Amino acid sequence: MCAKPSSSPVSPLAPKTFPDMPEIPGVRVAATCAGLKKSGKIDLLLVEMAPETCAAGVFTRSLTASAPVRWCRKALKGGPGGAQAQGLVVNSENANTFTGPAGEQAVERIVEAVADLLSCRPSRVFTASTGVIGKPLDDGKIIAALPALQEALAPDAWDMAARAIMTTDTFPKAATRTAEIGGVQVTINGISKGSGMIHPDMATMLAYVFTDATLPADVLQELLEVVVDKSFNAITVDSDTSTSDSLMLFATGAGKSHPQVRAFDDAALDDFKAQLLDLCIDLAHQIVRDGEGATKFLTITVDGAETDAAAKRIALTIATSPLVKTAVAGEDANWGRIVMAVGKAGQQVDTDKLAISIGGVAIAEDGGLLPGYDETPVALHMKGQEIDFHVDVGIADGTATVWTCDLTHGYIEINADYRS
Amino acid sequence: MCAKPSSSPVSPLAPKTFPDMPEIPGVRVAATCAGLKKSGKIDLLLVEMAPETCAAGVFTRSLTASAPVRWCRKALKGGPGGAQAQGLVVNSENANTFTGPAGEQAVERIVEAVADLLSCRPSRVFTASTGVIGKPLDDGKIIAALPALQEALAPDAWDMAARAIMTTDTFPKAATRTAEIGGVQVTINGISKGSGMIHPDMATMLAYVFTDATLPADVLQELLEVVVDKSFNAITVDSDTSTSDSLMLFATGAGKSHPQVRAFDDAALDDFKAQLLDLCIDLAHQIVRDGEGATKFLTITVDGAETDAAAKRIALTIATSPLVKTAVAGEDANWGRIVMAVGKAGQQVDTDKLAISIGGVAIAEDGGLLPGYDETPVALHMKGQEIDFHVDVGIADGTATVWTCDLTHGYIEINADYRS
Repeated sequence: MCAKPSSSPVSPLAPKTFPDMPEIPGVRVAATCAGLKKSGKIDLLLVEMAPETCAAGVFTRSLTASAPVRWCRKALKGGPGGAQAQGLVVNSENANTFTGPAGEQAVERIVEAVADLLSCRPSRVFTASTGVIGKPLDDGKIIAALPALQEALAPDAWDMAARAIMTTDTFPKAATRTAEIGGVQVTINGISKGSGMIHPDMATMLAYVFTDATLPADVLQELLEVVVDKSFNAITVDSDTSTSDSLMLFATGAGKSHPQVRAFDDAALDDFKAQLLDLCIDLAHQIVRDGEGATKFLTITVDGAETDAAAKRIALTIATSPLVKTAVAGEDANWGRIVMAVGKAGQQVDTDKLAISIGGVAIAEDGGLLPGYDETPVALHMKGQEIDFHVDVGIADGTATVWTCDLTHGYIEINADYRS
Repeated sequence: MCAKPSSSPVSPLAPKTFPDMPEIPGVRVAATCAGLKKSGKIDLLLVEMAPETCAAGVFTRSLTASAPVRWCRKALKGGPGGAQAQGLVVNSENANTFTGPAGEQAVERIVEAVADLLSCRPSRVFTASTGVIGKPLDDGKIIAALPALQEALAPDAWDMAARAIMTTDTFPKAATRTAEIGGVQVTINGISKGSGMIHPDMATMLAYVFTDATLPADVLQELLEVVVDKSFNAITVDSDTSTSDSLMLFATGAGKSHPQVRAFDDAALDDFKAQLLDLCIDLAHQIVRDGEGATKFLTITVDGAETDAAAKRIALTIATSPLVKTAVAGEDANWGRIVMAVGKAGQQVDTDKLAISIGGVAIAEDGGLLPGYDETPVALHMKGQEIDFHVDVGIADGTATVWTCDLTHGYIEINADYRS
């Protein structure tokens, strides 16, 4: 028996309920307490997928990436038919990062044990570890827990699956969507985790998305790379990049038969693309809503930039500014700090045209405070939980939206004493 | 009469006493309360310099730079003999930034009033404003205070001068050095301010350095650009860049006669260079020691990088990581977060050679935790006020040292409620 989920406070920005997750034909999940977390809470996830499942993934750009990330990159190269997957094993509590050759060997032993269990090649097993960096991973505990986990595999244990990968998260994160491919309905389920060390390229996050559609690995990979840019790579909590970030997409092909999709630009994929992006934005928002110490959810849209990339750079500079984030925490409509952040982004700005609004109320236009600006409605907006900043930098048509949370005492409390 | 300095708590990292500042021939200073600070504390500094004074300056790279910064850049272009200076006027409380044409006009009126008072051309008057962004500056209050300020000019009022430019600073910052040029002694005095919005290129800081040496403007400019890189541009408090950052160096030529210096690489300048760098590092350290909410002073040295610039990039990435800074606040020797920060810096790292030590104690070598690592002495070091990190990334000989402070509840308290 594993320890019950703690009754410690949940983020005030958390969704009211865990979504009602349907089954995904070809996917079974199970979670247990392998003893990595001293608390006895669940810390190990196993996913079994149908033999024909295709896989895609994007990973952290950290140059000190974890041993599991390096394994996944290698395994994703797959055979001539592209990457295939039958198993996924994820542990929390220990990141298996900066653990030298012993860390690599631990990954190999875990992957081989899962491959034995699921009767597949090791290159069809993907893995991730999240938690403390630099501590040897006790893979023996993981391997010992696997047979019972296999026994427990079930198509509906999504809540447990989402809980098994939590670290400082205060709630389990999941989302589901349906899409049509050539008039046939397919389902997409996703789970994610992350709360601190959250920043693009990528967040300190893990996210796994599963669909019963039949899609080749190269199409999945292209889908993922497009979608990540406007979802997981458009969020930041604390500007720190993890060594373990992983986003993977698996297509089991075990759903209803639909017209074959051969290429990314096939029109039959349009609805699937839209639903996948929507699901990934949902999962990314849940990570921000569980930002360490977060009390406000902040949407920052920048228009009028030289390019979309420039707009995103400016928006992220605002989103990562500690002065902006503490002002939001203090419910202070301190738009001067937005001006500061715009200035330090290193992107073209026409200061004579710069316009700023908060909560839909125009504050500054044409490079200065609007005459007769009344802070009352903006101050009221700042007291809410959902805060909106809009900035126009007056150069061209580049636009981007990013999401973040405020920087509060809670962040300091969580992070000044994480290991003890 | 101005209000007395507040008795609110001073940073625990502050120097024990204000330095004993000598006079600089050719420099007189005065400070008063012009009524910009509601508290009635001093908020306006006037410096008068000898007519032959040469000037140099480096300023923020922000694209939303303040009106005073734009004025100084223009005035520094000077005449055929290089930039000259006779007046410097600095106000705190209001940054005169994002204030449109009205802000420009305020600068012009202030500069003209000072030029009238000191009987010099407006282009010999430099200015800065520091405080809240986006609020019109009441230059009338400043201009009205100038005649009495002129009356009060004195060669020894350095403590008042340093206090006049404080914003969220908890102590006035000053340093003095003597140097020899061709066997003749010259003096260098400096004052600085800054506490939040502190980050290279540059810190949110003002710093003014004065010497009685006789040095041409082009040599001063080259000196400043070399020195800033290893002092003010090697500190960070919160990664935010100000719109008002200014560092200026003035040489009055009113000291003892010394052999003429014509070029930056003149060997007679060697001691002056060393002393100027030492003074600027001292002033920069004082800014970090007054970092908003700081309780620990952190020195980060990175060796073994591809270049010195790469080493600085890695060191600053460690220094700006909220997870590293909160771990230091929590006295937690969480070296795994150093690994994370090294990984996200985007510079070459040999993970099989990466070595980390804290407080002189080796923790990791050759890409992994040292066998038998005992955290006891490191934990003790983390309880001190002066924390040292050393990282070797195992590529080549690039090296850099940067300084920062921890991220604490105090930072949040100060910044969540700055305007109210």
